[in-house]
Amino acid sequence: MKAGEDQLVQRIAKALASKSRARLALGIGDDAALLVPRAGCATVLTCDWFLEGSHFLRDKHPPDSIGWKCLARAVSDVAAMGAEPTHFLLSLAVPGTLTGPWLDRFLRGLARAARRFDCQLAGGDTTRSDKILINVTVVGEVRSGRAVLRSGAKPGDLIYVTGRLGEAEFGLRSFRRGRNASHRNSLSVRKHLYPEPRLAIGRWVAAKRIATSMMDLSDGLSSDLPRLCAASRVGARIVADRLPKAKTPVEKHLKDLDLIELALNGGDDYELLFTVRPSQARRLPPAFRGIPLSCIGEITRERRVLLVWPGGREETLSARGWDPFRHRN
Amino acid sequence: MKAGEDQLVQRIAKALASKSRARLALGIGDDAALLVPRAGCATVLTCDWFLEGSHFLRDKHPPDSIGWKCLARAVSDVAAMGAEPTHFLLSLAVPGTLTGPWLDRFLRGLARAARRFDCQLAGGDTTRSDKILINVTVVGEVRSGRAVLRSGAKPGDLIYVTGRLGEAEFGLRSFRRGRNASHRNSLSVRKHLYPEPRLAIGRWVAAKRIATSMMDLSDGLSSDLPRLCAASRVGARIVADRLPKAKTPVEKHLKDLDLIELALNGGDDYELLFTVRPSQARRLPPAFRGIPLSCIGEITRERRVLLVWPGGREETLSARGWDPFRHRN
Repeated sequence: MKAGEDQLVQRIAKALASKSRARLALGIGDDAALLVPRAGCATVLTCDWFLEGSHFLRDKHPPDSIGWKCLARAVSDVAAMGAEPTHFLLSLAVPGTLTGPWLDRFLRGLARAARRFDCQLAGGDTTRSDKILINVTVVGEVRSGRAVLRSGAKPGDLIYVTGRLGEAEFGLRSFRRGRNASHRNSLSVRKHLYPEPRLAIGRWVAAKRIATSMMDLSDGLSSDLPRLCAASRVGARIVADRLPKAKTPVEKHLKDLDLIELALNGGDDYELLFTVRPSQARRLPPAFRGIPLSCIGEITRERRVLLVWPGGREETLSARGWDPFRHRN
Repeated sequence: MKAGEDQLVQRIAKALASKSRARLALGIGDDAALLVPRAGCATVLTCDWFLEGSHFLRDKHPPDSIGWKCLARAVSDVAAMGAEPTHFLLSLAVPGTLTGPWLDRFLRGLARAARRFDCQLAGGDTTRSDKILINVTVVGEVRSGRAVLRSGAKPGDLIYVTGRLGEAEFGLRSFRRGRNASHRNSLSVRKHLYPEPRLAIGRWVAAKRIATSMMDLSDGLSSDLPRLCAASRVGARIVADRLPKAKTPVEKHLKDLDLIELALNGGDDYELLFTVRPSQARRLPPAFRGIPLSCIGEITRERRVLLVWPGGREETLSARGWDPFRHRN
């Protein structure tokens, strides 16, 4: 008799078992999970698709990176509120042929991410399908009134980003070309496979009331910055020269322009984009725990998003980041 | 230029707009939703796949029934805890060709369900895929200590079910055979297309502390009752004659045995299965707001699940309900 759904759920529960049961009154195995909310906190809730063919390739991507990244992506949305993740639900649909070693490796990557982000499996749903389908719901918490929204930016605020932009896209391109395992160890390929949501920075700028608005960069700056501006009913002017570009090996001979294009339009970075009142800017160090914090421009009253090239030429920034309804992989 | 993801999200938000913003501090349009938990309540959390090919057929099922049912299925898990749904997340992946009239009809069914279950859209994720993929996360609340778990059944407890079992499976079979729209109006076909989670009964048996254990019947009694027994570390003896079978039109000429088989193994009923101490049984009416409440047997110390046939023959109940890893549609 083939292993059924119940056996699969037991394997998932075992692989993700956690010593801590903090505020999880009831986990996997009942109709629903029961969480105990922390007094004085709002509940943060988000979910994210991670689909074979659109977001990863079954034959190319290591299963443990699929496990890591499906959680990291959703946790990044929680980081972007200045909140802490606490629990997650895993919805997993896989072909029957992948319920052996593939699943074990997937679950190892997921378990490693769950420990790193201090986010506990609370439940989910498992079924069979021809393609690998993943949906992750993450629950988090943030002190009431301290969440940082997209809508709080004001004209004159300075615009910051964490880390280096376009690095994950550069990593994806290297990964696609790569024929041997050594490629997987380059910084940019690791960023593509195992992104690190900026939880600590997000919490810090929220707790210290440094950021007036914030979001994470998942589709690319040229798509995401206009979303923050639209939510805040403002515009922005960013400076090409100030973009923190990917560091690339010398032998790649990439032109500077290509690196700016990657920084503007590359997706999957999971860095944070946030705005700061000028009077607060002195509180920001040049880096936070080794992650650069770069001022790339400022918020404007006029509701356009402009890019300033070296020499002073200005152009309207076009959304050229990732949009599933406009792209084909 | 094609409509992108942002336009799609705006259409979904508009179709699901609600006058009430009860305890939703921040809805669609930011990185995550912010909910305000109610003091003295636990947060209930569940999610459910609803996939083309496995759970519905694109060419057969009316889009509004797909919208209704994807939410109803997940809400049923909340009903099974004795809890109230409050918010949900919609993860929707569709082919680009279905973002027109199909999506409008889908959203109408979903909006109707959201109003009926008093459950508000708080967020989600939208992307493109070849097949229609749906995942719904429902958040609910229940007074601390009042949730009814699967694990509370004790030997001697009486076993109850709501409604009639096998009706949705009977409806599915009629629906598959049906060539005209009149089929859609039969009670059983409507139950297949537009199931009604038993929220009021679930809340009532939880609030009055009548039920010692509870779960919803989604895969079929023969698969689900053993799960409740395993969680409670008990067995059960149920009586074939007492099963509330589907009412069928006279002209169908179905044998009684077939109706018992449907009641045991038919999935998708979304009725409640719960256990009651014998001393509490007198508090249960024969029906609750028109929905029959039937005692079908009792919990036993011996950890087997037995079915008693007319005449007294006993057999071990085999799990023949729905299991995605053992069935092919």
